Amino acid sequence: MGDKGTATRERILEVALQLFQHKGFGGTSISDILDSAGIKKGTLYFHFTSKDEIGFTVLKRASSELSAFLDSVLVGDTPLAKLDSYFIGILESQRRLKFVGGCIFGNAALEMSDSNALYADYIGQVFEQWIETLRSIVAAAQSSGDIRGDIPAEALARHIVATTEGAIMLARIHKHEHSLNLCFTSLRQMLAPVRTK
Amino acid sequence: MGDKGTATRERILEVALQLFQHKGFGGTSISDILDSAGIKKGTLYFHFTSKDEIGFTVLKRASSELSAFLDSVLVGDTPLAKLDSYFIGILESQRRLKFVGGCIFGNAALEMSDSNALYADYIGQVFEQWIETLRSIVAAAQSSGDIRGDIPAEALARHIVATTEGAIMLARIHKHEHSLNLCFTSLRQMLAPVRTK
Repeated sequence: MGDKGTATRERILEVALQLFQHKGFGGTSISDILDSAGIKKGTLYFHFTSKDEIGFTVLKRASSELSAFLDSVLVGDTPLAKLDSYFIGILESQRRLKFVGGCIFGNAALEMSDSNALYADYIGQVFEQWIETLRSIVAAAQSSGDIRGDIPAEALARHIVATTEGAIMLARIHKHEHSLNLCFTSLRQMLAPVRTK
Repeated sequence: MGDKGTATRERILEVALQLFQHKGFGGTSISDILDSAGIKKGTLYFHFTSKDEIGFTVLKRASSELSAFLDSVLVGDTPLAKLDSYFIGILESQRRLKFVGGCIFGNAALEMSDSNALYADYIGQVFEQWIETLRSIVAAAQSSGDIRGDIPAEALARHIVATTEGAIMLARIHKHEHSLNLCFTSLRQMLAPVRTK
């Protein structure tokens, strides 16, 4: 494919991502994509055979971007420093987005978990990978005594991802970081090593 | 309105709720509602002037049902018993739904937070009411020393709602209660009174 073809393919995927984020996958038609990209139907079908092919391509790219994002924020000298950097990274990424768009996987999950088993399966794998990435860091932080060891690492990792998704959603409704701040601050405090009274 | 008219109105709202939950608000057309309800366009427009009027009526009913649900599960001899009953109640309600449909407010929030300020405002109020209901119980449980007092009640309440929404979403993707179980078990344990090491 020449440079022009590659650029057109990119443009279709960028426009589709924006539309899916703002109108949902079901709410976005091929016509919407054509209008927003300013291209003709034949040009789109030269690059993609269906809306599903566009949908999966957008999700696969978003999955690669999520992995790269997690690699970029899960940094620090200790496992706990990596978790702290994760909380800051999520908050900053939502701030940059001005609390618009939320998490594409959360959006896709809520829209398609019941109606499209192929998408649900793919989205489920993305979340399990995210949880597994955090689980290994949580387990290391538990081993070094930096976070509480009385709750299994998998439960804590799953809890962190669930709270992340729920807090992004609340921040998005209000277009304000208040919910993300309070949820992450309380979660961070709850991860501290403790002795039951 | 006669019994028949009332029944038709009910039928439209029930069908619309099912469609919004499974296909999203944007993905549901008036035609979808007509087909599923087995009625003619004129009949629908006798009861509702627009899809938005149907949407808001569905959300207002769901809001009343959420209040009634919270009243029914936030029961117990102590504030902590009420919170325990809340976690069980959410899990059981999702089990009854076989992890299909999720939370209508979570779904609507993710679909419409960016695109429809009127809906976003309404949904935001529903979540703030939910958080406030939990905040007052959390504060009472803190006063009685049954849960940790080192994190503000509002932060804990917001955290509980965010985790509830995120865990319902994960359970819905996998059609399994694993995520709800682990998130609520860890959250419950993290609420216990603690002394920092």
